[in-house]
Amino acid sequence: MDTPALHPKAGPRHTPIGGVLLTNGDVDHVAGLLTLRESQPFRLFGTAEVLDALAANAVFDVMSPRFVEREAVRLENPFQPFDDLSVTLFPVPGKVPLWLERGEPVIGEATETTVGVMIETSGGRLAYVPGCALVTDDVRERVRGADVLLFDGTVLADDDLMRAGVGGKTGRRMGHVPMTGENGSLQALADLPIGRRIFVHINNTNPVLIEGSGERHMIEKAGWQVAYDGMVVTL
Amino acid sequence: MDTPALHPKAGPRHTPIGGVLLTNGDVDHVAGLLTLRESQPFRLFGTAEVLDALAANAVFDVMSPRFVEREAVRLENPFQPFDDLSVTLFPVPGKVPLWLERGEPVIGEATETTVGVMIETSGGRLAYVPGCALVTDDVRERVRGADVLLFDGTVLADDDLMRAGVGGKTGRRMGHVPMTGENGSLQALADLPIGRRIFVHINNTNPVLIEGSGERHMIEKAGWQVAYDGMVVTL
Repeated sequence: MDTPALHPKAGPRHTPIGGVLLTNGDVDHVAGLLTLRESQPFRLFGTAEVLDALAANAVFDVMSPRFVEREAVRLENPFQPFDDLSVTLFPVPGKVPLWLERGEPVIGEATETTVGVMIETSGGRLAYVPGCALVTDDVRERVRGADVLLFDGTVLADDDLMRAGVGGKTGRRMGHVPMTGENGSLQALADLPIGRRIFVHINNTNPVLIEGSGERHMIEKAGWQVAYDGMVVTL
Repeated sequence: MDTPALHPKAGPRHTPIGGVLLTNGDVDHVAGLLTLRESQPFRLFGTAEVLDALAANAVFDVMSPRFVEREAVRLENPFQPFDDLSVTLFPVPGKVPLWLERGEPVIGEATETTVGVMIETSGGRLAYVPGCALVTDDVRERVRGADVLLFDGTVLADDDLMRAGVGGKTGRRMGHVPMTGENGSLQALADLPIGRRIFVHINNTNPVLIEGSGERHMIEKAGWQVAYDGMVVTL
């Protein structure tokens, strides 16, 4: 797959970003929109719920409608942002963004709040699920048979933050299933036929980030890789 | 001047940021608030107008009221965020942030929209004016006699962006008086008694950023320095 948008330096201040797809409205997913070039043309995709949350915040108007087209995508409806690239959003268990929490949030409902993405090309299928509070049967069926799975690797154990002394929330309370433990992602996805398994969205308290750590060895032995900046995945 | 907050590494995820003062609501001034630690305690200061604009955008609720106290500051009213540090906000000609523009904005009114800051310690007075659309007589009187002046150095000439081929707006249209030309900051501030003159808020199209450039030599000959990341100014 190749598109003109992927060639950087096509002009002053050009970037190769042709499209942005939001899988939820958490601040770590949306704050970066404010640091893109103000006159950078791109298409912005997300569910109506996520785009509505942006629309309610005028600060995101730095993405001028003259340059950025916001396109609400319906769940289960494949669309083609580029030639030979079909994208389908599907709901996964998640929670409302922290900045929209009012009281105790509902955790783990599969709605428009948090989605996974199935990307299909003539070369294969890649599932991208950076946030997932629980590996349900439905999530398992979604990713079964993918050539590549990029999956939520925020926390190693549910109590990572408490053990690191940096917070009182569990992984699940933040909308992220842990890698380890009962119903952790390692266990819950182990028996599925999947080509490559790659953890993404890894919190800086997660010891799998450290090359050579026992935890890194453990997940590698279980057939997983850890994503890194600049990683290229070919389908 | 010293405060406990200035010692980094006081604990996990500690940063030495004890307070943040907004001089206007432009995205380059407020977007960084979203990338601070969510559980980082600090005090947030600004005019009521600027804080109201933040309050109207729920995404800034990532700064939890449990950790971040927002304090509206009245113009001309000195306050003491730390011991031996008196801060006074004064209006300078500016304009509403781009993301709040509706139609053609009024440029150059001195209101709560854009402010300068006079910081006074037992060691001296520092004036901080990172955005200023016009050097009026009032601006001149404000900064007269300061030991240090940090001043808006966004553009060299009013048409920097057009000459660089990256935009159609003049400096003044963006709320920034150019360094050069009739009523530019070099000329308009030249005769004032000021200790050190330092340009800040410099756009990446401004050739004074380039060490050894003719433009850099020119402003240095005029008695100005160019600020850089990690610069320390002692009063």
